[in-house]
Amino acid sequence: MGDVTARKRGRPRRTESDAAGTRDRILVAAREEFSERGYEKTSVRGIAKAAGVDSALVHHYFGTKEQVFEAAVEVAAAPALSAPAALAEGPLEDIGERFTRFIFGVWENPATRLPILAIVRSAVNNETAAAVFRRLVAAQLLRRVADQLDLPDAELRVELAAAQLVGTAMLRYVIKVEPLASTDIERIIARVAPVVQGHLTGP
Amino acid sequence: MGDVTARKRGRPRRTESDAAGTRDRILVAAREEFSERGYEKTSVRGIAKAAGVDSALVHHYFGTKEQVFEAAVEVAAAPALSAPAALAEGPLEDIGERFTRFIFGVWENPATRLPILAIVRSAVNNETAAAVFRRLVAAQLLRRVADQLDLPDAELRVELAAAQLVGTAMLRYVIKVEPLASTDIERIIARVAPVVQGHLTGP
Repeated sequence: MGDVTARKRGRPRRTESDAAGTRDRILVAAREEFSERGYEKTSVRGIAKAAGVDSALVHHYFGTKEQVFEAAVEVAAAPALSAPAALAEGPLEDIGERFTRFIFGVWENPATRLPILAIVRSAVNNETAAAVFRRLVAAQLLRRVADQLDLPDAELRVELAAAQLVGTAMLRYVIKVEPLASTDIERIIARVAPVVQGHLTGP
Repeated sequence: MGDVTARKRGRPRRTESDAAGTRDRILVAAREEFSERGYEKTSVRGIAKAAGVDSALVHHYFGTKEQVFEAAVEVAAAPALSAPAALAEGPLEDIGERFTRFIFGVWENPATRLPILAIVRSAVNNETAAAVFRRLVAAQLLRRVADQLDLPDAELRVELAAAQLVGTAMLRYVIKVEPLASTDIERIIARVAPVVQGHLTGP
């Protein structure tokens, strides 16, 4: 960040900001391609075409398709991955509700729902995408929640809490099972948050 | 069933048993194609080829691709759809453990895991397949569990219980998040069954 500020004040370094613009354009194109087509049907060539650059440039900036996917997911999941800090602020007896509200917040917001949906769809269908999901979401988000618990089985507790949230999101937003899909979100949170709390800090 | 027995005792009606054989062969081929390729990449032509019949015959017996999928899912999910009867046998205070053991039984058994995985993958990726999932699994399995509860919000309760089970299955068997993926199933059941029970019959 310090670098960016310094550069803004001085003369813009043309080639570097061009490079940053190209990199961003490729990332936006990648996110859209992966969201629309899923991991398997997306190609580096298709991403390059959507970004208006040569495939070689995509490889130059990111490497393989898996690495482009990881970078795109990292951007899409950035709010989720920075959240554990916010989740950590507050008493441990409310962590269930904070975790629940955070996850449903991501799903209820149309701007974040689509990228998350794309990640879930890709992870369910493709082992490479599942590995990226494990590295980013599981390792970063879940482990950091687990670190706050300071309990034996902390990781398993967090994963079973996440399972309740993931499963509810799947049935509500993806499969759209009724009445779950159209029930007011506050009624869902009232039922789910105590369960999540129980997984995290219960017996 | 009575019909089949009657036919066995008498002279076999050649054309009818041929038709049943062809129908079964198409269903087996359809299940394999949908499992391997997922809903979107599977075609009626591909199913016909795998079954060694003409595409017109697949349309004749089943109709559209969606209808072939529904028939194939119905066969694959037959144990799941007949289970509510077994789930109903026993006291209501154990229903959480029975429901939990039933679902993990399907996922732990390699013979049933693959068809269920194919259904989940297709339902996550395709709205038509999701609609079939809703009709078969949600409407038949979940509603029949809900009917036993005789509580207000019974359907929502069953769906949130199912969400815990679906989410745990996703993270354990599909995404393979550790330590959940390699934890002994009895330890998982010991943690999950009380949660499922709480959803179903708790406050």
